[in-house]
Amino acid sequence: MPTRMVYVRRAAQVVTAAGASLRPKRGAEMSELGIIEGGSVITRDDRILFAGPDEEAQRVLAAAPEDAEVEVLEAEGKLVTPGLIDPHTHVVFAGSREFELPLRLKGAAYMDILKAGGGILYTAEQTRAAEEDLLAAETRRRLDRFLLHGVTTVEAKSGYGLRLEDELKQLRTARRLNAEHPVELVSTFMGAHAVPPEYKGDPEAYVRLVIEEMIPAVAEAGLAEFCDVFCEEGVFTPEQSRRILEAGLARGLKPKLHADEIVPYGGAELAAAVGAVTADHLLQASGEGIAAMARRGVIAVLLPGTAFFLRKPPADARRMISAGVPVALATDRNPGSSPTESLPLIMNLACLGMGMTPEEVLAACTINAAHAVGRASRIGSIEAGKQADLVLFDAPNVTYLQYHFGVNLVDTVIKRGVCVVRDGRRAGA
Amino acid sequence: MPTRMVYVRRAAQVVTAAGASLRPKRGAEMSELGIIEGGSVITRDDRILFAGPDEEAQRVLAAAPEDAEVEVLEAEGKLVTPGLIDPHTHVVFAGSREFELPLRLKGAAYMDILKAGGGILYTAEQTRAAEEDLLAAETRRRLDRFLLHGVTTVEAKSGYGLRLEDELKQLRTARRLNAEHPVELVSTFMGAHAVPPEYKGDPEAYVRLVIEEMIPAVAEAGLAEFCDVFCEEGVFTPEQSRRILEAGLARGLKPKLHADEIVPYGGAELAAAVGAVTADHLLQASGEGIAAMARRGVIAVLLPGTAFFLRKPPADARRMISAGVPVALATDRNPGSSPTESLPLIMNLACLGMGMTPEEVLAACTINAAHAVGRASRIGSIEAGKQADLVLFDAPNVTYLQYHFGVNLVDTVIKRGVCVVRDGRRAGA
Ligand SMILES: [Zn+2]
Ligand SMILES: [Zn+2]
Repeated sequence: MPTRMVYVRRAAQVVTAAGASLRPKRGAEMSELGIIEGGSVITRDDRILFAGPDEEAQRVLAAAPEDAEVEVLEAEGKLVTPGLIDPHTHVVFAGSREFELPLRLKGAAYMDILKAGGGILYTAEQTRAAEEDLLAAETRRRLDRFLLHGVTTVEAKSGYGLRLEDELKQLRTARRLNAEHPVELVSTFMGAHAVPPEYKGDPEAYVRLVIEEMIPAVAEAGLAEFCDVFCEEGVFTPEQSRRILEAGLARGLKPKLHADEIVPYGGAELAAAVGAVTADHLLQASGEGIAAMARRGVIAVLLPGTAFFLRKPPADARRMISAGVPVALATDRNPGSSPTESLPLIMNLACLGMGMTPEEVLAACTINAAHAVGRASRIGSIEAGKQADLVLFDAPNVTYLQYHFGVNLVDTVIKRGVCVVRDGRRAGA
Repeated sequence: MPTRMVYVRRAAQVVTAAGASLRPKRGAEMSELGIIEGGSVITRDDRILFAGPDEEAQRVLAAAPEDAEVEVLEAEGKLVTPGLIDPHTHVVFAGSREFELPLRLKGAAYMDILKAGGGILYTAEQTRAAEEDLLAAETRRRLDRFLLHGVTTVEAKSGYGLRLEDELKQLRTARRLNAEHPVELVSTFMGAHAVPPEYKGDPEAYVRLVIEEMIPAVAEAGLAEFCDVFCEEGVFTPEQSRRILEAGLARGLKPKLHADEIVPYGGAELAAAVGAVTADHLLQASGEGIAAMARRGVIAVLLPGTAFFLRKPPADARRMISAGVPVALATDRNPGSSPTESLPLIMNLACLGMGMTPEEVLAACTINAAHAVGRASRIGSIEAGKQADLVLFDAPNVTYLQYHFGVNLVDTVIKRGVCVVRDGRRAGA
């Protein structure tokens, strides 16, 4: 096979997000994005070969193998960034829950919605009932939308099966889509997402099931890289969460935590104590918890779309950045509290709603998100040798992405060196 | 020429917004959207011929002329609405102002930005300097985006010329684009958008210029239907605003008003007193002002994208709806305080941010917006005889548009009976 190359020529700006691949960026470093004005990028097969000034790019090309097939993408006036990474989603599920929205607008609390037949157990029912092919088809449509919004990697959690066979079904679906679809999936086992109806009244028995049966089976099948728990009042206690995360760790599943979303519950502290890779949500995190996360290097994964959809104030990103916590951003794509695939809109909500700078926002969706999914040595920045995942935006600079808000500025997406979106459309589709 | 027909077949829902074409919907009435489940729509040339149950649609088609060319659009699972109408934009301008965003994130006030060379006078300078062809080209790209977001009509204000020749240039550009582009433009003269630098220190002399030279020239040339004033502390007083609006009225220009955006300034009261068609912004409107608007039937045009971009709480839509004021929604597309063409995102901000119901939001962007631009007898609802402006959304119901937020769900746009967007793309492009 001839060498396949893509030459992204003379962009307005290339954001490399390089130079910090071994640890996530925090505070002031998040503004040092390694921007190359008027730069070019060259990929070779599935890797990045070069990023730098165009004159150098031309010398690199001149030295390419004779039989190389070079595709030239004129990038004049465009912004080139690493492929966006969404480090927190529940994208594998069946069904839709728009019927809850009018109830919430009338002031219904989550418990009222559960009583009206909604909530997470509704989605668990739909997901349990769905054949694997249907589940894959629904999820594929969501991945298509992610890709059109510049997202080339998503983390995907189980947690709507809530029994062994259906948790495995969700994780198998993620593995299958990872093989089939341009979007790369990183799997997280989250059997401890809710207590299923069968264990109502005996959550401890469900915790044992998660620890004794589900985690070993998931690890055995190699179906997940991370283990996550919904640590929240009325769901799983910090003590239960710790046991589950430690059981996962013992089987090679790295810990993540849904922490302090609804009430302050010691989630941030627990994440630091167990050495979690990320603690997510954090709307109600305590000062001590944030300080502990900073000391331990736990990444805060913030989900402003969820706060927006639930009509709550967002997490205090500035406080975390000031405290030295590295911040990543995610959609939280799920049918109950964040039904969107637009990571660019999440970026707008982070900038305009939470006061993150355009540079911090971009670091949060690239190199920091790569750390949040444990793949920073392979993705998240534009550096020679890394995987060739790139986005070209119709934007002349980094700030413009937050300025021209609410519209999808993605022009081109390259995944593993292949143009999968051109002119805002699936290539070849 | 043969009769041209489009048959939109068996939509999940058709929202007619009919039955209230002669007056804007208020409060509870806004929820009565005239939804036809499983309905079909037939257009004939540039008009709507039929909207109703599919069995009837088939009889209507059977009676069509023999030589009719019928295009069938399968609408299974889709939502059909009237073409969206954006009743408040400043879309005709040159240049871009993303450089102000980092300053604002650091807490700079509007006056600081003016001193840094930004603000409205920066855009006035760029717009004055732009050749008419450049101004048209920049505006055309914005109209393209509007169309892809389901917007088939936009109001467009002048007000970046701030001297006769350049105000006329802006209005001529709007007229030209109205003829060339599928998006229909409704022109508003807004010479009183700011006091230009030449009149710094003598705003009263500029008010006289607007009244004595600009309004007569604009009316003479038939270049505008409405007249608007930025009535705000430090810009134009209520007394000056009233004189300008009355001078416009005397020349046949219907009044609109930028009212009570930054401080309470009696704008809502003035709008009611002069019988304005709309009062816009209203973040700081008084209770008496709102009551007066309700009595006089003045439409509130709310701009939640502007509040979002300026990081302020939005207007109190629920209070206005409760008071019996009809509400419309708009992007306020402009380079300083709302650089977006996504009316669907404005709808999300209105629902999730301001608590308007999905039905109220849709009435606000169709029939109420049609009243706000003085065209309710021709557009804004799906009724036999009205102009054939339709949108097909990838959504099974009205609520879903607000639920699956932040992504563009527009599939097909029909303007004057012609498919101008198909599968989310400009048709023929
Ligand atoms: Zn989650
Ligand atoms: Zn305005």
